[in-house]
Amino acid sequence: MYEELREAVCKANIELQAQKLVISSWGNVSGIDRAAGVVAIKPSGVAYNELTPERIVLLDLGGNVIEVETQNLASLQPSSDTPTHLELYRNFEAIGGICHTHSLCATMWAQACREIPCFGTTHADYFYGPVPVTEVMTKDEIESDYELNTGKVIVRRFANMEPMKMPAVLVAGHGPFTWGNTAAAAVEVAVVLEQAAKMALGTIMINPNKNKISQILLDKHYLRKHGKNAYYGQEN
Amino acid sequence: MYEELREAVCKANIELQAQKLVISSWGNVSGIDRAAGVVAIKPSGVAYNELTPERIVLLDLGGNVIEVETQNLASLQPSSDTPTHLELYRNFEAIGGICHTHSLCATMWAQACREIPCFGTTHADYFYGPVPVTEVMTKDEIESDYELNTGKVIVRRFANMEPMKMPAVLVAGHGPFTWGNTAAAAVEVAVVLEQAAKMALGTIMINPNKNKISQILLDKHYLRKHGKNAYYGQEN
Amino acid sequence: MYEELREAVCKANIELQAQKLVISSWGNVSGIDRAAGVVAIKPSGVAYNELTPERIVLLDLGGNVIEVETQNLASLQPSSDTPTHLELYRNFEAIGGICHTHSLCATMWAQACREIPCFGTTHADYFYGPVPVTEVMTKDEIESDYELNTGKVIVRRFANMEPMKMPAVLVAGHGPFTWGNTAAAAVEVAVVLEQAAKMALGTIMINPNKNKISQILLDKHYLRKHGKNAYYGQEN
Amino acid sequence: MYEELREAVCKANIELQAQKLVISSWGNVSGIDRAAGVVAIKPSGVAYNELTPERIVLLDLGGNVIEVETQNLASLQPSSDTPTHLELYRNFEAIGGICHTHSLCATMWAQACREIPCFGTTHADYFYGPVPVTEVMTKDEIESDYELNTGKVIVRRFANMEPMKMPAVLVAGHGPFTWGNTAAAAVEVAVVLEQAAKMALGTIMINPNKNKISQILLDKHYLRKHGKNAYYGQEN
Repeated sequence: MYEELREAVCKANIELQAQKLVISSWGNVSGIDRAAGVVAIKPSGVAYNELTPERIVLLDLGGNVIEVETQNLASLQPSSDTPTHLELYRNFEAIGGICHTHSLCATMWAQACREIPCFGTTHADYFYGPVPVTEVMTKDEIESDYELNTGKVIVRRFANMEPMKMPAVLVAGHGPFTWGNTAAAAVEVAVVLEQAAKMALGTIMINPNKNKISQILLDKHYLRKHGKNAYYGQEN
Repeated sequence: MYEELREAVCKANIELQAQKLVISSWGNVSGIDRAAGVVAIKPSGVAYNELTPERIVLLDLGGNVIEVETQNLASLQPSSDTPTHLELYRNFEAIGGICHTHSLCATMWAQACREIPCFGTTHADYFYGPVPVTEVMTKDEIESDYELNTGKVIVRRFANMEPMKMPAVLVAGHGPFTWGNTAAAAVEVAVVLEQAAKMALGTIMINPNKNKISQILLDKHYLRKHGKNAYYGQEN
Repeated sequence: MYEELREAVCKANIELQAQKLVISSWGNVSGIDRAAGVVAIKPSGVAYNELTPERIVLLDLGGNVIEVETQNLASLQPSSDTPTHLELYRNFEAIGGICHTHSLCATMWAQACREIPCFGTTHADYFYGPVPVTEVMTKDEIESDYELNTGKVIVRRFANMEPMKMPAVLVAGHGPFTWGNTAAAAVEVAVVLEQAAKMALGTIMINPNKNKISQILLDKHYLRKHGKNAYYGQEN
Repeated sequence: MYEELREAVCKANIELQAQKLVISSWGNVSGIDRAAGVVAIKPSGVAYNELTPERIVLLDLGGNVIEVETQNLASLQPSSDTPTHLELYRNFEAIGGICHTHSLCATMWAQACREIPCFGTTHADYFYGPVPVTEVMTKDEIESDYELNTGKVIVRRFANMEPMKMPAVLVAGHGPFTWGNTAAAAVEVAVVLEQAAKMALGTIMINPNKNKISQILLDKHYLRKHGKNAYYGQEN
């Protein structure tokens, strides 16, 4: 049941470690089967080298674990960040996979509570503007349903943005979430976000007064790779 | 005799190198058998790839080497930092393992004589507040019983802190010590400390006026992973 | 046909990844057979570990793809940056290979729109002066024939410079292009440029008022390795 | 002839690359047989993975190449930095090996023309004070006998210092030279210097007003590892 989804999600989680975006058991990736309304996500606190498709947890969009009889194993506990993922899936209908890491440099920006400015075409190729940072969460938001509320502050930040044109957010004082069509795509965005975050940090060290690139160059690069007039790669 | 302890301590020392926390023969990890009052520690100046459980040195809490007949080898000299470890074991009764490194970024903060502020949840997941830095040692403390006094300034710094809630310290002008239930746990904390130290450095570069996170978010993340109401992982 | 050229260009592209100058399918290397007027370049959006000499695209200097019957495969689309490469080959007659990356630190300088000063002999061994940055491209230059115009702003920047004495440029808000006698030489310059960019960043962090080195030291090091009086290596 | 010396020097050069202190064919290590007055050094411009003991060049202290019949190969050209090495051997009688690199962070300090302050015990364990930087070389020193004069400015800088207590120097605008009892020891110092240079850079970023450590702590750490009262390691 949902073998393909679980395999894809398992593989995407393992890729987090291969890409050096996580240490220990930090970070988690999920994917969704939109037709079935089923989400697959990393189990909580399990090391990446112990992940197998059978250990990936299945849930419905309401957060109920779906028990699957696989080699007589009971389902593991899903990632403690699961309510955040579910809130994003419920509100961002176009997305098919979500990735959360504490990757080094993106987390620096999240901790600094500063959005990552679009300083160049590397950034513009993937993110259609600065990567936003959420508001700092309130006492109430933290003390009850913290992980669900983490999702809510992200959704609130995207009130006027299209998630598929800005596939990343920095949760203030915490770290990045990224997304895409699939679990694998969400991880790819996490890799690029970390690179863009590094480049932006170096940019302000070299030139603290640097402005973002022009809207025209942003349009050019983003639309060269995305949308109906894209002309990058082999399939346009 | 104490084979299990020596194996665990040997493995934890080797892990230091795998985690890139040490170069050359710098750094040392110890573990304690509380029931027996026996400490196992790295021998002084021995390269990590030459470590075997038989070469791990055993001592009592008073610093007397316990000779163990293993393949007719005399005991090696224990790490020159042994008196620091023993002072911590004598005073921090809850701890079972200690790790000392000169890991790059934690050492930068130690050399700068600044505590590492809690700027985010990565930090809060492991350290219940800023990672403290000791006082600069006095002439007398340095000139006689330097390593013992290193332990004493650490203990003094923890007069009003619980070591198991703050499993790390920066010795001013020197580097970090970390601890945990076991030798392996102490190394895990050293890995996370290095990551938190890197993130904090980047954070102040991006936003020099950044304040620490709120006590509420600190409580939330620390207590999500620690204590009786923890809900992270598979065993809560 | 042009097997040797395609093999050299394929190998140079793969070297980009081995040298950690690129992630994903970013970056591209080309080479030219000047006698035949034939350019070989990476196909667009193809991962480095899927590159083979047969997949390298051939074009004439006017940008027309040269179909080669290789195992009945139709030619792939050339790199979207091809018009930039062609413009450089048309104008810089001495060069035989071109490399474009978004390598981390060189891109920081490009994004900061600052030339890389010559702070030391590492830089002077390869670059005869500061590595220049182009003007920011205009609205018109971006909106039509963007990649061709990228080539034109580079050529304009070199109005009074000799490309073989300054084998690198930073495109403002974008990233570096490098070149040399061959595709492999262009990649070697890209490796050194990244190193020089890192060193220069560290230099201004340690000493923000640091001046460039003297013209005399620049001459000494550059001419020790280049030109008729060079005396470095085994073949002078 | 001098097989052991050549093997040691070959191995030390290869170690430069393993330790990531060099890229391309940059950097060179030499060793001396004091009794015979024979120096062994890396050939110029040869890649590290092509080095063999037979390709290591032998010279007397006057710089004359000593031809050795090894498999009928003529001697290669010695490193272009050979006159610098020879000048150091002639003036620093206690040293047995020399290493020159453009290692990333030590070169940043050299380019910034700032000595590396002793901010902590990692530094103090190897260097008895700040790592000095030479004067900027004059026009005359650069234009004739540049490499010999590089040695002379180093020697001049050490007029009041003991080379074995300060086994490293930064040549202004260039990079570090290190030395020790043997070629291998010189490389070990280069590794530690790079680490100390990184730590010092981070230290001033965290605390720009940080002072060096006290003379007392410097004495303690340096003398814990060096001289007749040393008590680190297994052989004191």
